[in-house]
Amino acid sequence: MLGRLRSLEGSAAAAREAWPLMEAMYPVCRSITGDGVRQTLDLVQRALPLERSEVPTGTVVFDWEVPKEWNIRDAYVADTEGRRLVDFHAHNLHVVSYSVPVRRSMTLEELKPHLYSLPERPDWIPYRTTYYREHWGFCLKHRDLERFGAGPFEVVIDSTLAPGTLTYAECTIPGRTAGEAIIYTHTCHPSLANDNLSGIAAAVAVAQELRDEHPRLTWRFVFGPGTIGSLTWLSRNEHRLKRIKAGLTVGLLGDGGPLTYKRSRRGDRVTDRAAQQVLPRISPSARLVDFEPYGYDERQFCSPGFDLPVGRLTRSPNGKYPEYHTSADNLELLKPEYLAESIRALAAMIAVLDANRALRNLSPKGEPRLGKRGLYGSVGGTAPGEFEHALLWVLSLSDGDHDLLAIAERSGLDFGLLARAAAALEDAGLARTIEQDGPALKLEARA
Amino acid sequence: MLGRLRSLEGSAAAAREAWPLMEAMYPVCRSITGDGVRQTLDLVQRALPLERSEVPTGTVVFDWEVPKEWNIRDAYVADTEGRRLVDFHAHNLHVVSYSVPVRRSMTLEELKPHLYSLPERPDWIPYRTTYYREHWGFCLKHRDLERFGAGPFEVVIDSTLAPGTLTYAECTIPGRTAGEAIIYTHTCHPSLANDNLSGIAAAVAVAQELRDEHPRLTWRFVFGPGTIGSLTWLSRNEHRLKRIKAGLTVGLLGDGGPLTYKRSRRGDRVTDRAAQQVLPRISPSARLVDFEPYGYDERQFCSPGFDLPVGRLTRSPNGKYPEYHTSADNLELLKPEYLAESIRALAAMIAVLDANRALRNLSPKGEPRLGKRGLYGSVGGTAPGEFEHALLWVLSLSDGDHDLLAIAERSGLDFGLLARAAAALEDAGLARTIEQDGPALKLEARA
Amino acid sequence: MLGRLRSLEGSAAAAREAWPLMEAMYPVCRSITGDGVRQTLDLVQRALPLERSEVPTGTVVFDWEVPKEWNIRDAYVADTEGRRLVDFHAHNLHVVSYSVPVRRSMTLEELKPHLYSLPERPDWIPYRTTYYREHWGFCLKHRDLERFGAGPFEVVIDSTLAPGTLTYAECTIPGRTAGEAIIYTHTCHPSLANDNLSGIAAAVAVAQELRDEHPRLTWRFVFGPGTIGSLTWLSRNEHRLKRIKAGLTVGLLGDGGPLTYKRSRRGDRVTDRAAQQVLPRISPSARLVDFEPYGYDERQFCSPGFDLPVGRLTRSPNGKYPEYHTSADNLELLKPEYLAESIRALAAMIAVLDANRALRNLSPKGEPRLGKRGLYGSVGGTAPGEFEHALLWVLSLSDGDHDLLAIAERSGLDFGLLARAAAALEDAGLARTIEQDGPALKLEARA
Repeated sequence: MLGRLRSLEGSAAAAREAWPLMEAMYPVCRSITGDGVRQTLDLVQRALPLERSEVPTGTVVFDWEVPKEWNIRDAYVADTEGRRLVDFHAHNLHVVSYSVPVRRSMTLEELKPHLYSLPERPDWIPYRTTYYREHWGFCLKHRDLERFGAGPFEVVIDSTLAPGTLTYAECTIPGRTAGEAIIYTHTCHPSLANDNLSGIAAAVAVAQELRDEHPRLTWRFVFGPGTIGSLTWLSRNEHRLKRIKAGLTVGLLGDGGPLTYKRSRRGDRVTDRAAQQVLPRISPSARLVDFEPYGYDERQFCSPGFDLPVGRLTRSPNGKYPEYHTSADNLELLKPEYLAESIRALAAMIAVLDANRALRNLSPKGEPRLGKRGLYGSVGGTAPGEFEHALLWVLSLSDGDHDLLAIAERSGLDFGLLARAAAALEDAGLARTIEQDGPALKLEARA
Repeated sequence: MLGRLRSLEGSAAAAREAWPLMEAMYPVCRSITGDGVRQTLDLVQRALPLERSEVPTGTVVFDWEVPKEWNIRDAYVADTEGRRLVDFHAHNLHVVSYSVPVRRSMTLEELKPHLYSLPERPDWIPYRTTYYREHWGFCLKHRDLERFGAGPFEVVIDSTLAPGTLTYAECTIPGRTAGEAIIYTHTCHPSLANDNLSGIAAAVAVAQELRDEHPRLTWRFVFGPGTIGSLTWLSRNEHRLKRIKAGLTVGLLGDGGPLTYKRSRRGDRVTDRAAQQVLPRISPSARLVDFEPYGYDERQFCSPGFDLPVGRLTRSPNGKYPEYHTSADNLELLKPEYLAESIRALAAMIAVLDANRALRNLSPKGEPRLGKRGLYGSVGGTAPGEFEHALLWVLSLSDGDHDLLAIAERSGLDFGLLARAAAALEDAGLARTIEQDGPALKLEARA
Repeated sequence: MLGRLRSLEGSAAAAREAWPLMEAMYPVCRSITGDGVRQTLDLVQRALPLERSEVPTGTVVFDWEVPKEWNIRDAYVADTEGRRLVDFHAHNLHVVSYSVPVRRSMTLEELKPHLYSLPERPDWIPYRTTYYREHWGFCLKHRDLERFGAGPFEVVIDSTLAPGTLTYAECTIPGRTAGEAIIYTHTCHPSLANDNLSGIAAAVAVAQELRDEHPRLTWRFVFGPGTIGSLTWLSRNEHRLKRIKAGLTVGLLGDGGPLTYKRSRRGDRVTDRAAQQVLPRISPSARLVDFEPYGYDERQFCSPGFDLPVGRLTRSPNGKYPEYHTSADNLELLKPEYLAESIRALAAMIAVLDANRALRNLSPKGEPRLGKRGLYGSVGGTAPGEFEHALLWVLSLSDGDHDLLAIAERSGLDFGLLARAAAALEDAGLARTIEQDGPALKLEARA
């Protein structure tokens, strides 16, 4: 097991340390491409070494292609006196992301099809995008919209949509075996805090600690835009997908909703089974929900052509809290204790996934003599203790058909206790880890 | 999906139109062979083109052989004054079906072993048969039996049991693929209405509409006697059994009991899964019950040497309503609204079974761009609608391991919605139907 | 089915007859080796012919070796006046089993690490062993220990721990087929009644009756010490393990706890399925519990290198009744009615396991004509009786994938009724028993 990660489980310090990073990232106007993404990754890079990738516009990515790069300098709707009624500099949600440039005088009637507001939430600005259709628009509080006169208005969007690059970054923590795992978090949302500065911050917190461990698997923390970012990463890493043993998309980790794990497409993969072991012990209100093909980047990792063992960890899921995709998803929505619990859950899942493996009992005919190896009390007549039970369970099920998670599921014993028993049996020469490639796939196939 | 069948789902006209046919069939004295069967098929043939088969007595049918043909002209028990105490012409249930000829004077004591009545239902005539033992008998109201004196009685059965043929008929509606399906309904019961004029009438109503469709599967509606009829059909169609993808025996469809589907022998075949999707939506009181080897002709289709995906659709099952196999199972027991619901259920099951298929996602690596194909809204930021969800589910599970029924089971979405999504994806070139032979069997094997 | 065993199910005589044997065995000082074991087997041999095995000290048994043989003549702790404060002759639990010889004067302080008592049960003598570490000790009532002065004490254990043999015995009842089954009961406990004179007595009672049958399987009743005894038997019988179709370790069968069946390691083997059919019918309070790797000799039979279909039958399990492994586990704890129920359960499980088999329907296409073979009523129109239902179920599922237990599970019919139906079908030439080797394994693999 990974000791430093365990320490994370017990501490709220990482959550408190995450606040300045989130505060610095909040005002930046991110989108799926552009300088806002690069500025965000600059901030992350102060905490975590990142390898950056810039992928040119037009690069074919499966059924998609990398879009033009979007950058924006200014945007507003002004009245005839020049007063800005909607001003990008007041809140970067005011402009529909990927809006093409516009500079025009328009009546309200002409402008209306380009205005987005929430009548049922008149004080919140909605978040809208137009990545794949050349279009422009403004988002605003419905209360402000109601005050608009008939116009005319001066409508300006000073943006650029032009060939450039899509930017993503990853922090790779090398492992001792050929197996790999991935943590993906999206970086494309402008001034929205829970979605997804919280995910970025939690990933950074855990990756920082994991860098000082010697994990079994190679862990890749990827920071990229939603949909096109994960597709791009997948297209550039197709050769290594067969080595991916586990994975998570993470985000929406700072709000007050319960920890929510969304299962991978098959629903019985190692990541799903780890969540079942870990999350109820972190929080009794944690929920595990079944896969559905709508959501965040797990959609791409779990598409049938990849079908990777990738689940999703959030608190409130997408669309399931009122402030979702509005200006009310700001830093005040988040609390350190929620983020701390999320970090503990993420760290614990990584620790279990990294320690999980199948062993081979090297003395499978009858029980081996644990006593002569110092693993068992010598005066008989009373029942064995918890650790001795764990030794017996690991021996019993180390037959090539069960990994440590399966032993935890069947025995009801704590995964960490079983991992310590497994290590003791390996030290005593009574068991041996089965190499991941092949057997792991066999285990997956059986599950 | 089959549009005309859907229209059946919404209309009671078919049930009302069925009444004259049932009224015409009711008085005919049917048995497993003989002119009563032929007269019945003549009546059906007015509504539906039928291919008739006449199979000679003595033809070997697996462990059985086609019996002699039975016909009857008259039968009675008369007192010494010539008064008919039991008269075949009053009710054709009065004679035990397949009774050999008799013309004799007998005392009550001699006659008693040949008399069948229901002491607990003294006003009902029971229904009895003696197909496979040369025997004769009369069925009568227990109240009438109690009035019998000591005799002697003139006992006459003017029947013929002689070499002839067994008669069955089928209406074949050709499909676009090599797959086939069967609807079997028994035609051997004399004046019993629910069992099984209702089944004949429902099959006719649905077949009439299906003839105007272009179904995917070839549908065979078979009208034949119980047990020996299905055995005979099976023995003459053994070469095509491997093409049968689904099937139902139908009967007892006009009474007030809840819709009842009896699963096929394996219990997880496509017909069983269609019933699970369809019937609870037709009626909340619909029941699905497990296979057992007693019942109607599903016994033969599901025998281990055939093991076909054939379930059974009834309302009250055999033996589970008081009037079963008595003179009280007459046309007054039936109601148009019950038959209409049964017709809706049968039509809906056929529509689902015909539309069910597995597709192959042709763009399985990541999600394809639905927006550029006009299948998805272009302004992002809000959740997709129901149809878009259906598109994502079909794409996600069109991997060769799931048919549309499996996608309905997993997603909870309506089968019809998913079928429309599948068609849209095929039109857009994003998915392709997997040919039935082979993959369907693979799907069955996995289930 | 085995008729004499069925008679056991209905009689309490066997339990009453077991009492004198248990009374004779009770005072003998058994251990895992030594003359106490031989005396015990001499007593058993009066009731049951046994084949004895003597395996020399030092014989390698997988990861273990046969230990030195232990015998004891006397042991005591006496005060300076020679009064015995602890006396082996008063109760043979007083000496820790396998204690090495000692003859010394000691203070209480020196003696204390060698004394075992139960403060929470001050009137009971605990049972302790030191088989695999050269050590010695006394067990005593805590109340007595509290009266000890400071000493000095004369401490004597007149034992021998020297090269010799390990003794076990078996009674083999030859079967008609190549399949085998095993009943193992441990013989190593000194004056403890439930654990395990009750198990020995129950095994003897059932084996006596089974000897007069002609079972299908060869049944081996093995009487040997715990752990090292089953390991030794396994090491000397490895060539025949592949023929073992079922098995039980039995013990703790005379107390008032509910019948408790512990499943085999895989949990779905034929023995487990027989227990599910049998035990709830013997007693509504019977419990089936999942395998865990701690317990009695099922640990060895179920170790992953053997993975045999061996469960365990007890009443209260090890460690789950207060008197367990103390002097309070004496003959007064047991009652004939409890032992009688245990014997019924053991006999019934053996009868079902012996009768269980898969059949092949020899007329699988459609139903065969049962009527012409005298297996079915000839007048049709009413539902078949229970035996006819059983015939139909056996025919339906005799496809190579279901044994009689599977048919009982699916049909809900009584196993004995199905076994009679199977025999009738075999007599009529409609079904044939599938030979055990191969198909049985195939059935296991599917379960």
